[in-house]
Amino acid sequence: MPALVESARAGSPRAVARLISLVEDGHPALRAVMAALAPHTGRAWVIGLTGSPGVGKSTSTTMLVGAFRARGLRVGVLAVDPSSPFSGGALLGDRIRMQDHALDPEVYIRSMASRGHLGGLSWTTPQAIRVLDAAGCDVVLVETVGVGQSEVEIAGLADTSVVLLAPGMGDGIQAAKAGILEIGDVFVVNKADRDGADATVRDLRHMISLGDRAEPGLWRPPVVKTIAAQQVGVEEVMEALDKHWAHIEANGDLRRRRERRAADEIESIALASLRTRFGHVGGHHGLGTLAAQVVDGATDPYSAADTLLTQLDI
Amino acid sequence: MPALVESARAGSPRAVARLISLVEDGHPALRAVMAALAPHTGRAWVIGLTGSPGVGKSTSTTMLVGAFRARGLRVGVLAVDPSSPFSGGALLGDRIRMQDHALDPEVYIRSMASRGHLGGLSWTTPQAIRVLDAAGCDVVLVETVGVGQSEVEIAGLADTSVVLLAPGMGDGIQAAKAGILEIGDVFVVNKADRDGADATVRDLRHMISLGDRAEPGLWRPPVVKTIAAQQVGVEEVMEALDKHWAHIEANGDLRRRRERRAADEIESIALASLRTRFGHVGGHHGLGTLAAQVVDGATDPYSAADTLLTQLDI
Repeated sequence: MPALVESARAGSPRAVARLISLVEDGHPALRAVMAALAPHTGRAWVIGLTGSPGVGKSTSTTMLVGAFRARGLRVGVLAVDPSSPFSGGALLGDRIRMQDHALDPEVYIRSMASRGHLGGLSWTTPQAIRVLDAAGCDVVLVETVGVGQSEVEIAGLADTSVVLLAPGMGDGIQAAKAGILEIGDVFVVNKADRDGADATVRDLRHMISLGDRAEPGLWRPPVVKTIAAQQVGVEEVMEALDKHWAHIEANGDLRRRRERRAADEIESIALASLRTRFGHVGGHHGLGTLAAQVVDGATDPYSAADTLLTQLDI
Repeated sequence: MPALVESARAGSPRAVARLISLVEDGHPALRAVMAALAPHTGRAWVIGLTGSPGVGKSTSTTMLVGAFRARGLRVGVLAVDPSSPFSGGALLGDRIRMQDHALDPEVYIRSMASRGHLGGLSWTTPQAIRVLDAAGCDVVLVETVGVGQSEVEIAGLADTSVVLLAPGMGDGIQAAKAGILEIGDVFVVNKADRDGADATVRDLRHMISLGDRAEPGLWRPPVVKTIAAQQVGVEEVMEALDKHWAHIEANGDLRRRRERRAADEIESIALASLRTRFGHVGGHHGLGTLAAQVVDGATDPYSAADTLLTQLDI
C-alpha cells in the first residue's frame, strides 16, 4: 500500500486508477491511504461542471482539458454518472469523446458511479479528488450529469462551479426550478449557434440580476456563450474561471469552501460509520423489527429511531 | 396539538396543511404528532411520478387525480420541487394547473421544498405521506421534478413508481444514463402526439427487455402512451397501476417496500439526530477545527471522523 501511494504521487496513472478503485469500493485500506495522502493535498483547483443531459458536458470538459493542458498544467477529470444504486455501474456512453486526451500522460480521466445517499457524491468524489490532488493534478474537473441534487452537492464540493445550459433546454424558469441559479459561479450557454442562445443568455442574466448575488462586492456570475465542439468561446470561459479563482482566493471564500467541503466529508464518514453500526443492532431492537413495527402502526419512526440509538455502542 | 391531529384525521384541509408545515419546518412537536398518527397509517397507496422538466408531470398528475376521484377515492398530492438548500423555497410555476382540483374537498395538494441530503426527500416526504395517509387519503401521488438522485429516492419511497418521458427528450440511452430503467414500475410516454413517440416506446421496451427484469415471474414494467392534456391514455395508465398494485400485494413486495421505506425513515431520523450532536461538539475536537486541519493536510478525514465520534455522547 505505501508503494502504491508513492507511485501515485510520482504520477503513475495505474497507481492513481488503483487508488480511485479503492475509493469506489470503500476498501478498508482507504483509511491508511488517505492518511498517507493527506500531507500532499490542497494544491488542486477543483472545478465542477454540471448540467442536464444533452447540454454538451463531455465536449465542454474536453475543451477545458485542452485549455488547461495548453498552460502546461496536469489535469484530472472525474465524470460522475448518476447510476442507480441497483446496478451500481457507470455507463460509458459519450465518455468515448474524451479520448482526445486519453494518451496524454498529464491527463487522468476517470468515470465514477455515484451511489446512493451516504456513499454517494458527498463521500467518494471528495476522496477521488484527494487522490488526483496528491498525484500532482493542478486542476481537477468534476463532471456530473443530471439536474437537481447533484448540482447542489457539487456546489459544496468544488472551488468553482460551472453550470452548463443549452438553448431551448434550460430557459430561466427551468434553471430556477432546478435550483441552479444559486450554485453557479460561471454559467456557460453551450451550442450557442442554435436558435434561442441569446434569449437563454438574457434570461439567465436577468434572473441572476434579480437574485441575492446582485449586491455589490459579491461575485456576480458571468454568462458565457460557447460552441464547445468547435472550441468557440474557450478563452472567455477560461477568463471567467480565472477571475472567479482570483475573487475567492482574495476574499477568503476559497478557504471557507474547502473547510466546508472537509467538514461535509468528515460528517459523511462519521455518519456512514454510525450507519454501519445500525446494521449490527440485531434482534428485538434491530432496524428490521423496528421497520415492521412502523409499517404496522405499532410505533412511529421517531420512537423507533430513539430505540435504535439507545442500542448503539460507540 | 392533539386537537390538530384529530382535525386532520377528520379530514380538515387546514389541519393537514398545518401538520405538513410542521414536517417541513422539522418542528419539535413532530415527535408527538407522528406518535399520534402512527396507528392510523398504512392505508394509502403511494404512487411516485417522476421525470425530467418538460415531460408534463403536473398535467399527468392532474389526469390521475381526476381518474382516482372518479372512483370516489380521496387523493393527496405532494409536489416535491428540487429547490436549492440555499433558498429553501419551492417555486410554484405550473402548480397553477393543478387548480382543476383546488376546490375539491377530497383532494389535498401540497408543494414541498426538497432540502439537502439528510433533511431531504428521505425524511420530510415520508412524513408528509404519513400525514395524508392518516387524514384518510386512499391514494397519495408524489411528484418529483428532476432526474437522477430524486428518482432513485422515490423508488425507495413509493409503492408504485411511474416514470414519465416525452418524445425527443428521453430516448433509451438517456433513460439508461439517468438510471430510471431500474426504478420504473410503469413507464408513461407523454405528449404521444409528437414525433418520435413510437420510437421512444420501442426504445424503452427494448431496453427493459435487455434488463434483469425480463426474467419470468418478475414484474415487467409496461410502457403506456398518453396525451395527458387531453386525457388520452388515462385508462391504460390506470390499468397498469392497478396491475402493479395487484402484483406487489400478491407477491409480498408491497410489504417489503414499505418496510424498507420505514427502515430508511428510521435511519434518516437517527442519523439527523446524531448529526445535530456533531454540531454540539465544540473546541479542539469540534467539526470546524477538524475541517481546518484536513484542509491544511494535518490530518485526514477518517482520522477526523474518528475524533469526532469519540466526542459523541450518546
